[in-house]
Parts: sequence; structure tokens; C-alpha cells
Amino acid sequence: MRPDGREPLQLRPIHIETNYVKHPEGSVLISVGDTKVICSASLEDRVPHFLRGEGKGWITAEYSMLPRATEQRNIRESSKGKISGRTMEIQRLIGRALRAVVDLEAMGEKTLWVDCDVIQADGGTRTASITGAFVAMVLAFDKVNQQAKFSSFPVKQFLAATSVGISKEDNVILDLNYIEDSSAMVDMNVVMTGNGEFVELQGTGEEATFTHNQLLEMLDAAKTGIQSLIQHQKDALGDIANRIQLGDE
Amino acid sequence: MRPDGREPLQLRPIHIETNYVKHPEGSVLISVGDTKVICSASLEDRVPHFLRGEGKGWITAEYSMLPRATEQRNIRESSKGKISGRTMEIQRLIGRALRAVVDLEAMGEKTLWVDCDVIQADGGTRTASITGAFVAMVLAFDKVNQQAKFSSFPVKQFLAATSVGISKEDNVILDLNYIEDSSAMVDMNVVMTGNGEFVELQGTGEEATFTHNQLLEMLDAAKTGIQSLIQHQKDALGDIANRIQLGDE
Amino acid sequence: MRPDGREPLQLRPIHIETNYVKHPEGSVLISVGDTKVICSASLEDRVPHFLRGEGKGWITAEYSMLPRATEQRNIRESSKGKISGRTMEIQRLIGRALRAVVDLEAMGEKTLWVDCDVIQADGGTRTASITGAFVAMVLAFDKVNQQAKFSSFPVKQFLAATSVGISKEDNVILDLNYIEDSSAMVDMNVVMTGNGEFVELQGTGEEATFTHNQLLEMLDAAKTGIQSLIQHQKDALGDIANRIQLGDE
Amino acid sequence: MRPDGREPLQLRPIHIETNYVKHPEGSVLISVGDTKVICSASLEDRVPHFLRGEGKGWITAEYSMLPRATEQRNIRESSKGKISGRTMEIQRLIGRALRAVVDLEAMGEKTLWVDCDVIQADGGTRTASITGAFVAMVLAFDKVNQQAKFSSFPVKQFLAATSVGISKEDNVILDLNYIEDSSAMVDMNVVMTGNGEFVELQGTGEEATFTHNQLLEMLDAAKTGIQSLIQHQKDALGDIANRIQLGDE
Amino acid sequence: MRPDGREPLQLRPIHIETNYVKHPEGSVLISVGDTKVICSASLEDRVPHFLRGEGKGWITAEYSMLPRATEQRNIRESSKGKISGRTMEIQRLIGRALRAVVDLEAMGEKTLWVDCDVIQADGGTRTASITGAFVAMVLAFDKVNQQAKFSSFPVKQFLAATSVGISKEDNVILDLNYIEDSSAMVDMNVVMTGNGEFVELQGTGEEATFTHNQLLEMLDAAKTGIQSLIQHQKDALGDIANRIQLGDE
Amino acid sequence: MRPDGREPLQLRPIHIETNYVKHPEGSVLISVGDTKVICSASLEDRVPHFLRGEGKGWITAEYSMLPRATEQRNIRESSKGKISGRTMEIQRLIGRALRAVVDLEAMGEKTLWVDCDVIQADGGTRTASITGAFVAMVLAFDKVNQQAKFSSFPVKQFLAATSVGISKEDNVILDLNYIEDSSAMVDMNVVMTGNGEFVELQGTGEEATFTHNQLLEMLDAAKTGIQSLIQHQKDALGDIANRIQLGDE
Repeated sequence: MRPDGREPLQLRPIHIETNYVKHPEGSVLISVGDTKVICSASLEDRVPHFLRGEGKGWITAEYSMLPRATEQRNIRESSKGKISGRTMEIQRLIGRALRAVVDLEAMGEKTLWVDCDVIQADGGTRTASITGAFVAMVLAFDKVNQQAKFSSFPVKQFLAATSVGISKEDNVILDLNYIEDSSAMVDMNVVMTGNGEFVELQGTGEEATFTHNQLLEMLDAAKTGIQSLIQHQKDALGDIANRIQLGDE
Repeated sequence: MRPDGREPLQLRPIHIETNYVKHPEGSVLISVGDTKVICSASLEDRVPHFLRGEGKGWITAEYSMLPRATEQRNIRESSKGKISGRTMEIQRLIGRALRAVVDLEAMGEKTLWVDCDVIQADGGTRTASITGAFVAMVLAFDKVNQQAKFSSFPVKQFLAATSVGISKEDNVILDLNYIEDSSAMVDMNVVMTGNGEFVELQGTGEEATFTHNQLLEMLDAAKTGIQSLIQHQKDALGDIANRIQLGDE
Repeated sequence: MRPDGREPLQLRPIHIETNYVKHPEGSVLISVGDTKVICSASLEDRVPHFLRGEGKGWITAEYSMLPRATEQRNIRESSKGKISGRTMEIQRLIGRALRAVVDLEAMGEKTLWVDCDVIQADGGTRTASITGAFVAMVLAFDKVNQQAKFSSFPVKQFLAATSVGISKEDNVILDLNYIEDSSAMVDMNVVMTGNGEFVELQGTGEEATFTHNQLLEMLDAAKTGIQSLIQHQKDALGDIANRIQLGDE
Repeated sequence: MRPDGREPLQLRPIHIETNYVKHPEGSVLISVGDTKVICSASLEDRVPHFLRGEGKGWITAEYSMLPRATEQRNIRESSKGKISGRTMEIQRLIGRALRAVVDLEAMGEKTLWVDCDVIQADGGTRTASITGAFVAMVLAFDKVNQQAKFSSFPVKQFLAATSVGISKEDNVILDLNYIEDSSAMVDMNVVMTGNGEFVELQGTGEEATFTHNQLLEMLDAAKTGIQSLIQHQKDALGDIANRIQLGDE
Repeated sequence: MRPDGREPLQLRPIHIETNYVKHPEGSVLISVGDTKVICSASLEDRVPHFLRGEGKGWITAEYSMLPRATEQRNIRESSKGKISGRTMEIQRLIGRALRAVVDLEAMGEKTLWVDCDVIQADGGTRTASITGAFVAMVLAFDKVNQQAKFSSFPVKQFLAATSVGISKEDNVILDLNYIEDSSAMVDMNVVMTGNGEFVELQGTGEEATFTHNQLLEMLDAAKTGIQSLIQHQKDALGDIANRIQLGDE
Repeated sequence: MRPDGREPLQLRPIHIETNYVKHPEGSVLISVGDTKVICSASLEDRVPHFLRGEGKGWITAEYSMLPRATEQRNIRESSKGKISGRTMEIQRLIGRALRAVVDLEAMGEKTLWVDCDVIQADGGTRTASITGAFVAMVLAFDKVNQQAKFSSFPVKQFLAATSVGISKEDNVILDLNYIEDSSAMVDMNVVMTGNGEFVELQGTGEEATFTHNQLLEMLDAAKTGIQSLIQHQKDALGDIANRIQLGDE
């Protein structure tokens, strides 16, 4: 039995509230259990220096937590004057994951800024950020598409992420909350597309190791979880999901 | 007529949702029109270096905006590696205002960290932060008071803040939204207590000046607005407002 | 009786030495009692990014203290690698105050850099900086005006600043020195023009509050002080004050 | 055929020169093809703040490249004043990987600092760093063990790392050099122990995705490569490898 | 003939005004021609970490220029967030030079902070800083000595500094002003004691070289200049110079 | 007798391995006793801002030490986020020294970046860096010259550097190792050309002073050492030394 009474392969309750803030082109408030993240997608009409004149777009992500999103208050990274390694890892991961399902040529020379701000944390903030950021991105592209049609809609596939792990009792578990995450032997973040391919896979033994069979079992659990998350994304997007004809049908 | 149809001395709609996030001792989501701020109050069992052994507490505030709280996306201060002058001014103001109505001796050697994170901005973010932070602070003190009684409840007075100004049409207006703020001749932030005394008063001619009579007229408008804001605070606090016997009755 | 024997509404002795350093277009050494500030005004033939092509000028101020301007040596902000909130507040205030009495269009696309460096501090460094910076600015504009006439002289009004407060004995006092400032209940900085209008007003209860009547009494005191300071500015400017026909006559 | 003529599953030539620099407790110069890294292991008699009094040790890694380790000169991170996200990711990975095969209790309250400085880069610098750092670590523990016996030798398993990927021609390849890495569809870093378990697995589609079968094929390739790398480590360690009775026999 | 009409081996006019600011234990305003530096000496009752418990003192210097000390306004190092290489070189030089003539044991566990702030620059700011800082240091030690006698007066020798160089016309010249400094082939700073020994010697060919004979000629010029500077120091110190029995008689 | 058995005026063994790393245009590994430095020279086809359009080149140097180049591990400057005063002094010295023997006009609008990375330190790292950097620079210019002839070969003179000092036993000694350097009374770095002229001379009494005669004796020792170092440079350069007809014959 898990600390919050879930089955080993059961996700926490998911809610995705679209257009949560008014200024960004796309935004959501995603809740995965007690983990809550505001994801905003902002389109800017230029690309970073290294892409100028290439005729393609770019996607970049930033991630942050409010100081008291966690049990103990954290010092702001703006006060420290620098961004932690953990933050950098996460924001690089989010950006890379989104770029994998986007046709950057179809974007034209635009940059999509994705901001994931965790307002309440209970484990799995990076995977919730990816799952929410995908929806915010689709909303932003859809909004801009209505004003000035893209050559084709830039998003090629659905995309979601979850965590799997091996608990200290040696069970494979899905969607770890903070307590589980702190004590797990192995922790793996999996990012997959709507057609069941991998985009990113990061498995780490925490002062521990894992076997080939345990790996396969964790990947199966992740796949089930991600299919369910993508269904929630489709529900949240409603007509937009149908209209844009994503390639996973 | 004002851009959003209000009367000159009419506040925007106010909502204060208490206990908005689960980890902090006290928290609110305050909305003043389209301006929305998450205010969290965290109590820590130690004081800054300069107060050690003095037997009194300290209150410090931090303020930030999500990058896309505004019409144009702002670069994060953590990415820039430093905090802007504007942010510093605001967080110093919030901390100073709260300290003016708190009995620091009654707190004991504790620090109250107040975090004001603007998730949507439409003018008046600093005054909304003060008004919301006061409620979060009372909630935090109340929660701690239930576990380990303070010698006396540390909050002495209600406290709220609003802005007043002189519009480009030369009218005194209350609670400026972003459009009004951008074009006002004079902008004044007023922080007052429940018994009608001033805590802070910051009036600035924006490449303009103002007369003694205009000052008096603005102060009257501010007073009316603040009385209304304090009523909203009392409603949000419910029984806690009654129980703690604030000194303004 | 005040610590240095002054009457409640008496200013400290004022001296303004013009052209104190040779390189800047305008400079003064201003002494207000034992507070001494070197104010330099430098004109640069370009404007910040946000004003390019607008056909108007800009004024920006920087403020600093020598490490041993104070009783205890302070660590340099260059050594700390960042500017304190207090410094930012002060330099923003100085710049804003000067801009309120200058016709930025008449300046053309130039930036005036005002540097206020406190070499000895005894309270009131920010208001002494404004009073001195005004004179340095007029000297700089006059010097440039002799070489290449402005369309009209850019300075519209005299401008000076002083502090008022409520002492711990509950008296309204003018021009607080360091000892008074440290113990005052209320501290207010007032910036006014030669024709008696307000430019900036910053009143703060230091863990205290103040009433409407106390506010009015403090404003009266400030007004008297500022009239006297402006007379010192005129004396220091000599013929330049007459020639430039400021709008306060 | 690969750019340098290798078979798809062939490693580049490996050389490990032990005790390459004189001051560190352990050091190697590892060459994997043209990638050359100096790995130093330094033991310090204290642990970070969060571990004081816990009776266990800590391992932390730092990674850097000489500015001209690469085809184009890179700006030093010390000149930029901050460490890039890529550097942070790599040094966190190296530290985590080493900690997975060390008995931190057996270390006592010591910190092992591992410095990986790339003097020439041709792809695979992070996996070469892990493979070399493991040897430097064993040398350092062995040296200290000779002076003051550990309760048991702290290293539990051999550990090495390599990269695998899917080339743009859709082949699974082992140990990618820089040219291959730049054009690969998928890039995966694998860290394994001497007994064939995973420590870390980081697979990334570069604007691409990969299937379950491709994943299995890449893991097979990685396993073969790592067994060969561990044989090179044993050869480099000589008697030390035998004497310390690592748990993989 | 030199730009300002001096003979090749003639110093500029020297003025040393003692006790220029009121808070520091010792201070001077030194003028060497148009170069003007405020030198302050502050004594603190503790030593840096690396000297604790050693029973000896430390001397450390900081150097800065007001932004408009120069013909073109310089950006403040506090705004840049870091100290330039030039500033670091100079402040290390000043500290090292002063330490060479002080008996650090006689100081006890105290730190002398020397601040050299250039308010007007016309070449030779680092040598003027050393010459002025020496006087400020003696004043500070004398003041503290009157309150709490040192075991012996800590200053062992007089100390002054000047620059010499080879002009573009190939003449050896003494005490270069800014114009001469900018065009000189060779520039050498010399720090000497009252008994004619060298403390520091820094000679640099500016995209040029110099011979052994030129070196000897420059050293002769420097020696003459330094003797004259030390006479000015003695005049400024008055009785203090006599009373303290410096070792150069 | 010296700690390592050398005569007072005997250099340590010198080795210069050319083309030590493959990417830079020129590189060496120089060993002076146990001091080992990788020197790389990189040519870039543009010049710093202040030289654009002047038709001449620039040379700039950077210096760093691996953390465990020394007996005690040093914190990386990239981790500290800033470069120390010592590092800045050294890299400014290296750049200035190289520029003194190069015809910057002959370079055209190119920048030569010289990186000196100390992998093992035993005293004299800055002088070893200059001696090695000179060879790396000549190799880089030679390589570029073969592809696109310079108007004339930019290097005018050989250049090398060494240290001399006065030991605590009051002897003049050449090429101080770390132990000697730590205890020396006087330490002097000398940079000279192949035709025996001075480029840079930095002599420092370490809480001590030195006489004119001691200076002359140290300069003689330095001259002998530098002649020997230049012979090693010629041997390392082989034909390149002959072909390029440096001006010292």
C-alpha cells in the first residue's frame, strides 16, 4: 500500500485548467495530486542569435518554484543571484522534450517561451511541468494560428511525462509523490509521445543500481500512465485537439 | 469616465481566498481587479544576525512577478542574476509596512517571511501585495498561536494599502489600473491602519508636480478606499478577526 | 533642545562650492552640517535604448558613499558585487526628482548622468544629494548651452529637498542629523520646486504611525526649509541663476 | 562505415595513465580516442554541512573544459562568472554515478572531490570522465587506506560509462565521436557496474523519438562497451584491482 | 619641454591636507598636480581568518575612482558587479607596500583598512594613493596609540611612491601626468622607503622594451622624487613625525 | 644549498613539448621542474571593440590553475563566480609581455587568444606561462602564415621570463620553486627579449625591502637564466625558429 492509498500503478488525480492567466498566448494550471504548476507559453517574433536567418523557430523553457511551494521555504534563485544545477537540468529537459514533437520549420522565425512556475510541490514537478507545458504550447500555437496561419500546425504529436521508480520495498510504482520520491531506490522520468515512442528517459539509482528486468517493468508502468495523461490533455484542449489533427491518430 | 467604467473613487472588485497553498503557515490569493498575487507567510524560528539575543522578532518581505504576469514577458531576475531597483523598493516597503503594525517583542525571536508573487498584473501590485500579505500574516500568527501561545497576539492594527493619483485629465482617481497608472501625472501609494493613521505615504510626480490641495484630495480618496479594503480583510479572516481583538475597535 | 542645539525648525549650516572637480560639465561640493556630498553632472550625446529616436533626453543618477563616510566602515558595493536596495531607492529618487523640473524635449537626445558621492555622512544624504545635484545640473546645462544653444534652457524650476520628522519626544523637527534620524518615530523626505509644489513625498513610520495633523505640520516645516535651501542654490549659481530665467519668478 | 572507420559496436582506443599529476591522492589521464580528460581525486577530512555528524562521507564532482579543448575556443566559465547548465548537469551526473558504487559509511566523515578537466574533446567527454574518475577514486582510496585503514574498502563495484546512439542512417552505434554525436538522432549515456546493473541511463531524442526496440538494441551495445572499459580499468589499476576485492567477482 | 612646462625631473606641486574627513582614525586629501585622492585609514579590532590567533595585524587597501574623476565618465564597478583587473592590481600594490614598512606584530590583532578614493585623476593615481595612504596610516596609528599604547609604534620607515618613464622623445621623466603617461614608451612605478631602499618596482614597456642603462637612469630620477615626497609627508605630519621616531634617522 | 640541491643560479630542468593538443593553432606543454603548463594560442578573425577599423591586431591572455594543481585543492574561479586579483594580474602580465615583441600591424585585424592552464604547480607558474606562451604563439603565427602569408612575420624578438629572489639566507637565487618562493625576502619576475632588453620587471619586498646593489645582482641572474630559456625555445621550435628570422640575430 502506498502512503496516500494508491495502487502501485495508479496516477494521482489530474486537473488541467486552461487559460489560467490572461496575458500569455497560452496558459494552464495543472494539478497532479498536490503538485500544482502554472505553465505559460509566450510567442516572440524572433529567434536566438544562433538561429537567425535559418527560417526555423525555437522553444525554450524556464522553471522555478515559489519559495514556499515546499515544506521548508527555499531561498529565491534571484536572491542567490544564480540558478541551481537542478533548475537548469529541469528547464533544459522541458525545452528539449517540447522541441521533439514540434516542426520548428513550420513555426517560422519565432521563439516560444515556456514558463513553468511551481506554486505547490509534492513530487513530480518536472513531469507535471512537461505535461502542462504541452497544453499551454498547443493553446498558444492555436491562438496565433487563428490570426496568421502557420504553413502547417507546428505540433506533430501529443507529449506527456511521468515518473516511475522502485520503492524501498522493491516495488515498481508510478507517479511518485514527495515522500515516495525521497525514499525510492530508483527514480526514472519518462517522456513519451502519443504514438508510444520515447522522447527522453532519465533513470537514476540513488546510491543504488537496477537490473534490466526492473527497467522493463518501469517502462511498462510509465507507458500506461502517459496514455492516461494524454487523455486528460485531449479533454482539456477540447475542440482544439480535434481541429489540429495531431499525427497520433 | 475611467477606462474600465469605474467612478473616480471606486475600487476594483476585491477577492481574498485564504489558505490558497498548503505548505505556508498562512497564505492568500488576493485579486484586485485583474491584479492577482499569491501572498505566503512563513515563520522561522530564528532572527537575522543583527537581532540575535534581543528577544524580538523580524518581518521581511520578498516580491516577484511571474515572467508573463505582464503584457510583455519579462526576463526573470534569477536569469539576470540580480534583483531590480523596483523589486527592492517594493519588498522593502512591504516589510516596513507590516512591521509598523506588529509588536515585534510579542513575536519572540522568530522571523516572518512574507512572499508576494504576482501571477497576473494590472496595476497596483505593490498595494495589493500589502493588503494580501497582512491577511496571510494574521493567518500565520493565528496558526502558530494555536500551537504555542504568544505572550500577546503580535498584530496591533489592521493594515491595508491602495494607490491614488491624478489622471492626465487632472482628476483625482482611486486604485489605478495599469492603463491609468501609465498615463497618470501623479501617483501616490498610501498605507494606513484600521484606526486611520498613516504608515507610509509615497507620492511622486511623474515628470510633473502637485499642489498642497491636490495632496489633501488624494489622501481623502485613499482613506475611503482603505476602509473598504480592511472590511474585505475582516470578511476573509472571519472568526480569526474577531478572536484576536485587534486594537482598532 | 536638539542634540546640536538647533531650534526644531532650523536647518544646519549650508555651503555649496561650485566647480569642485575639473572634468565634469558641472559639479559641486555641498555641505549640510557635517554631511558632505560631491555632485557631478556629466552630459553624454546619446540616450538609453528605450528613448532612441524620440527626440528627447534623459536624466539618470547614481549614489554612493565612501566606505568610511560613516562612523563604522561599510563594505564597498563593488566588493559585494551588488548594489543595495537602499542605494537603488536613493538613486531612483534623485533621478526622478530632477526629471520633474527639466524639459526633456529641450535637452535633445542627450543623457545627463548625475553622480552623488557622499564623502562624509551625518544624516540627510539623499536630500543633500538632490539639493546639490540640482546645482550641478544647472551648471552642466549652462556650460553646454554656451557652446551649443539649447532650443530653450532645459531647467523649468528650482528644486531642493530636505527631511522632516517626528522626534521620539513627539516634536516636529526639520533637517534631521544622524542621531535624530536613528531615533525618530517618523521620517519624511520632501522634494519641492521653487514655486512651492511637491515633486516627491516619502513619509515612513518607523515601527510607528502618524496622524493627518502631524503630516500637515511636517509639510509646513519642509516648505520653510526648502525655501531657504533654494536661496542658497541661487547664491551659489550667481549670474547663472539670473540669466537662465527659471520659471519660478 | 563510421567516419573514423570503426565497426558500429567498436570502441575507440582507450588509454589510462595513472598518477598523472603529483599532488592529488589519485589521478589519471584517460584518452578515449581523441577525447582526453585529467581526472583527479582529492580527499578532504570533512563533509558538507548537511552531512555533519552523520558518520558518513560524500563524493562531489566538478567538470570543466580548457577553452581550446574544442574546435572553436569557448569562453571560460570563470570569465562569464557562472557555470553553464550543461556543466552542472555533467558534474551532478559524475558525482551521482560514483556515489552509487561507494559505501559512504565506510568512508567516514570525508569528502572526495573529483575534478574532471577535459584538455581535448572529441565527443563522449562526460562518459570518459566517469570511467577515468572511477580509477582516480580507487587510487585515492587505496593511498589513504595504506596510511589509515578504512573499516572496509569503500568501493563496492567497478563502474564505467559510455554512449550509444542512433545514427542519422538509423544504425545503433557505440561510443560516438564528436561528428557522430552532432548528427545522431538519439543519444544515450549509460553508466553500469561491473556486475551488469544500471546506475544511470539518459536517453534523449534530438528533435526525434525512439522505439522500445531501438532502446533494447542500444542497451545491448552499451553493455558490451562497458565490459571492455572495465577491463581497461582493471589493467590500469594492476595489483590494486586484485587487492581490494571488489564485489563484482 | 613637458606639456605642463616642467623640467624632466621636476615633481608636480604636492599638497597634503590631514584629517580631511571626520570619521576615519586617519585621513588625508593628497593632491599631486591635478590628481586628488582621499585616503582614509580605519582600524578594526580583528584580523582576517588566515591570521586569527597569530598575534599580529594586517593591512589591506581598497582603491576606487569616482565615475567622473576622469575626462570620460567611467561606469562604477558596483554597477558592473565586479572589480576590474586594474583596480585589483592597484589595491594589492598599496596594501603590500604599506605592510613592508609596518611591524605587524606591534599592531596586535588589528586590521588597518586603507581606502584610496580618487576624486580627480590626472595620472599617477596609484603612486599618489601610496604616498597619501602612508600619512593617513601614521595618523590612525598615532590616534589609537594615544588611547591604548602599542608595544612600539608600528611604523618602521617612511614610505612614498612616484612614477618615472621614458617619453616618446626618449627622455627619462619624473611624475608623469595623464598625457605623458598615455604616450610614454616605458612606465615604471617605484615605491621606496625613507632610507632609500626599494619596496616595489614595476617597470613595463608599453609595446616597447628598455635597456639596462635606461633602467638605472629611471631609478635615479625616482629616488630624487621620493626624497622630496617624504619631506612633504613630514611637513604634513608635523610633531607626529618627530614624536614617533621613525627608523630613517 | 637549495632545497632541491641546485646551485643558486641554476634553472630547473626545462621541457617544451610542441603541438600538445590538437585543436589550437599552436600549443605546448612546458615543464619547468615540477611546474607544468599547457599553453594554447588561438587566432580569431576579429579584434576587440576598441580596435575595430584600426588595421592592427591584439593579443590577450587567460591564466588558470586546475583545482588540484597545488598541494591543497583550490576552489575553481568558475564556482566562485569571479576571477581573483592574482589571476587578473598574471593574465594582464602575460598579454602585455607578448604584445611587446609582436608587430600588431603585421597581424592584421586578428586577435590571438593565449590560454595558460597550469596542470601542476611548483612555483614560477607565471614565468613558465610566458616562456611557453611565446612558443605557442610562434607556432600559431607560423601555421596561419603558411595558409595566408602575413605582410611580415609578426614576431619581432624572442621572449622569455623567469623569477629571481633573495632567499631568507640573504642569497640571490634563480628560478624559485614553491618552497623557496614562500620564504623569500624579495621576489622579482623578469621578462626579457632575445637581445637582452627588459619588457617587464616586477620586484616586490615581501614585508621586506631591497637595496640598489641587490637589485643589480638579481638582474644579472635573471639575464643568464633567460638566455638559457630562449635556447630551449629555439630547440623546441626547430626549423620554425630559423625560418622566421627573428630580429635577435
